[in-house]
Amino acid sequence: MSEVLNTIKSRRSTRSFKSDMLPSDIINSIVEAGTYAANGRGMQSPIIIAVTNKELRDKLSAMNAKIMGKTDFDPFYGAPVVLIVLADKARPTYVYDGSLVIGNLMLAAEACGVGSCWIHRAKEEFESEEGKAILKSIGIEGDYEGIGHCVIGYKNTEPSKQVPRKDNYVYYID
Amino acid sequence: MSEVLNTIKSRRSTRSFKSDMLPSDIINSIVEAGTYAANGRGMQSPIIIAVTNKELRDKLSAMNAKIMGKTDFDPFYGAPVVLIVLADKARPTYVYDGSLVIGNLMLAAEACGVGSCWIHRAKEEFESEEGKAILKSIGIEGDYEGIGHCVIGYKNTEPSKQVPRKDNYVYYID
Repeated sequence: MSEVLNTIKSRRSTRSFKSDMLPSDIINSIVEAGTYAANGRGMQSPIIIAVTNKELRDKLSAMNAKIMGKTDFDPFYGAPVVLIVLADKARPTYVYDGSLVIGNLMLAAEACGVGSCWIHRAKEEFESEEGKAILKSIGIEGDYEGIGHCVIGYKNTEPSKQVPRKDNYVYYID
Repeated sequence: MSEVLNTIKSRRSTRSFKSDMLPSDIINSIVEAGTYAANGRGMQSPIIIAVTNKELRDKLSAMNAKIMGKTDFDPFYGAPVVLIVLADKARPTYVYDGSLVIGNLMLAAEACGVGSCWIHRAKEEFESEEGKAILKSIGIEGDYEGIGHCVIGYKNTEPSKQVPRKDNYVYYID
């Protein structure tokens, strides 16, 4: 099963994507992997919104850039697919739960030969009136917090070189 | 690369472990996978404390049970190895960063045929004077928050059956 360890070690975040849309079966496989993340008490607190609609993708990008204080910048690095992960604040483990979903999405993407990157500021995005309106229009009710976006698409660049792990990352007490 | 997707889908949390110690090369492989988790701005905010020392393992178990309000209970389910993940609060992404480390640890364990479970209450554990004293005795300084424990060991039970994913886990906007 060393493919799992190899994928974990070789995965790098992608920050330049081709605009080509991914086949839906690949998107579905990646999204499905996200839904199988561990979660507190098996309550499955997260949800995933898989956005391939260009209009909504561009709107989210603009909202995200605005939160960054930037304009004329695409925080999604050209990725055609945005997987938004939110989690139900009623569960005390919701931030951990949602993070594990994004971890699975990134590894599954790598396993499918697809680039990925965690993009932050989902919290601020879905606390805004504009963000709340998007959730409502999809029929999502309840007290969800944005955990992050996992943007995916074909890599437009070679992955950057792996940075060495820091000293003192691990302490062994035996 | 479907081994990655299969491992993600088939992984289940283990809640009964054999007391047999894991070989150190397996522990090292799992821990190394943890260090390669994605993290905000590549700042590697988390640290991992790999505890195989029985005295400390039992002390942590008792501290954790006390936070739960239980006694005569082992929240680590008999696992001989406790991988504590903490992360540097100076990084705004530290909770997400630490969660991804634990996600990698759980998947790497599964890939190695080893059971794992995320055990919570690390935050409270290392906010206590007793917890702070443990960190200090190891030489860990700085403002670290406990994100979680990943306990690992050989499985003592068959994995529980996979629960179906909830309805409305995923929304597609195309």
